[in-house]
Amino acid sequence: MDKLTVVKIGGQVIDNTDDLEPFLNVFKALPGHKLLVHGGGKKATETSKKLGIQPKMIDGRRITDDATLEVVTMVYGGLINKTIVAQLQALDVNAIGLSGADGNLVPAHKRQHPTIDYGFVGDFDPATINAELLVLLVNQNITPVCCALTHDGQGSMLNTNADTLAAGYAQSLAQHYEVELIYCFEKSGVLLDKDDDGSLIEKLSFDRYQELKEEGKIAEGMIPKLDNAFDAFRKGVKVVIKKAAALHTTIGTELI
Amino acid sequence: MDKLTVVKIGGQVIDNTDDLEPFLNVFKALPGHKLLVHGGGKKATETSKKLGIQPKMIDGRRITDDATLEVVTMVYGGLINKTIVAQLQALDVNAIGLSGADGNLVPAHKRQHPTIDYGFVGDFDPATINAELLVLLVNQNITPVCCALTHDGQGSMLNTNADTLAAGYAQSLAQHYEVELIYCFEKSGVLLDKDDDGSLIEKLSFDRYQELKEEGKIAEGMIPKLDNAFDAFRKGVKVVIKKAAALHTTIGTELI
Repeated sequence: MDKLTVVKIGGQVIDNTDDLEPFLNVFKALPGHKLLVHGGGKKATETSKKLGIQPKMIDGRRITDDATLEVVTMVYGGLINKTIVAQLQALDVNAIGLSGADGNLVPAHKRQHPTIDYGFVGDFDPATINAELLVLLVNQNITPVCCALTHDGQGSMLNTNADTLAAGYAQSLAQHYEVELIYCFEKSGVLLDKDDDGSLIEKLSFDRYQELKEEGKIAEGMIPKLDNAFDAFRKGVKVVIKKAAALHTTIGTELI
Repeated sequence: MDKLTVVKIGGQVIDNTDDLEPFLNVFKALPGHKLLVHGGGKKATETSKKLGIQPKMIDGRRITDDATLEVVTMVYGGLINKTIVAQLQALDVNAIGLSGADGNLVPAHKRQHPTIDYGFVGDFDPATINAELLVLLVNQNITPVCCALTHDGQGSMLNTNADTLAAGYAQSLAQHYEVELIYCFEKSGVLLDKDDDGSLIEKLSFDRYQELKEEGKIAEGMIPKLDNAFDAFRKGVKVVIKKAAALHTTIGTELI
């Protein structure tokens, strides 16, 4: 099988224009086929503020109402996606920007929750991802650049977590390629002490992850990220969590 | 050769949500392959205003400065494009949204003008359009939905006239399909008296067009539209100009 690397980048790369170009150069140099998944960074929040849209929170959770859906569709699907695509094209990477609505790539449904209405937030089953479209493109040496949007099949876009999407794409493509999933974020990987970048865990098993959670050493935003990561790992995907600036190095946490 | 229809819609369909759904239903019913090109409508102007961006005019021409480029990239490439794609998906039309940067679809260059710097406005040569990508998608029964953005190959998006783009796509695809180009706008077609919808010219030749221009009966926005239309006509494309709501009828102006 050919090799394909799914790379997920978040705010730290996107928000800082100076970081984006060097990152894309390193991304370009990765061997084999590639797929990039990007979040929205602070740009969506900034744009919302400028448009006078108040963030809507219920029980501490951010709600995607109509106005917020418009903003994320503009910012994720338009501004950030096309900026990355144009910059990759300038590096001779034949990138194509995709949301989950394009080519029915990621059919999703509004999140069901017994007490909270999250609004236009989409959950999906990785088995329903249109991997055939990705294979069609990738086999033409086209590099998909995927934003954190899906659709409900009834005419509405949905806001979807970029980490979950990256894991979904990786799982879905594992039937067609030898897939590696790299989560890029602001730290060197999973840390024993979140404030000490030197406390990197180089190899992490699911059992060890459970222990570290119980000990409170892995907490907050790292937990959903690792849950997504282990989902993909169980489907035969190699998973590494590392710093965006270390994409070209072996420094990071590998799931085992 | 298979038949392919390029349909261009502008503001009148996009700005009015009530008009969009019936239009997309009629678009779906067109026989053969299809490609949709959309403008930006008033939504870009509205969003600019809300963001406090002043329209920049030089010698009566609108200039696409940095801030305006961000807005059109958001609104054309994100909000409008994805809204149309999601609504087509809901009608079981397998749409895919594309800008001219995606898959290097429309390489362009900043407009050169002896006295006016239009900013991030892109002109292109139809011969450089990546028709192979469109053919790859169309032959999988995927319907491209193309927004009025191109790119300069150096990392920047460019704002490009949707009428010109539609004519470019039609010409480029005429090597692969029997292409019809339909310009939808607010009137029934080319009118002898622009205020009388009953004065429709059903068949229009290039010579007659030149006469009507000299007589001042065709003027303003209609001239660049017809120049684009005749460019495509000369490359073997059937061209019709009609009202969006009449897409399913034979009412309109056909170039001969």
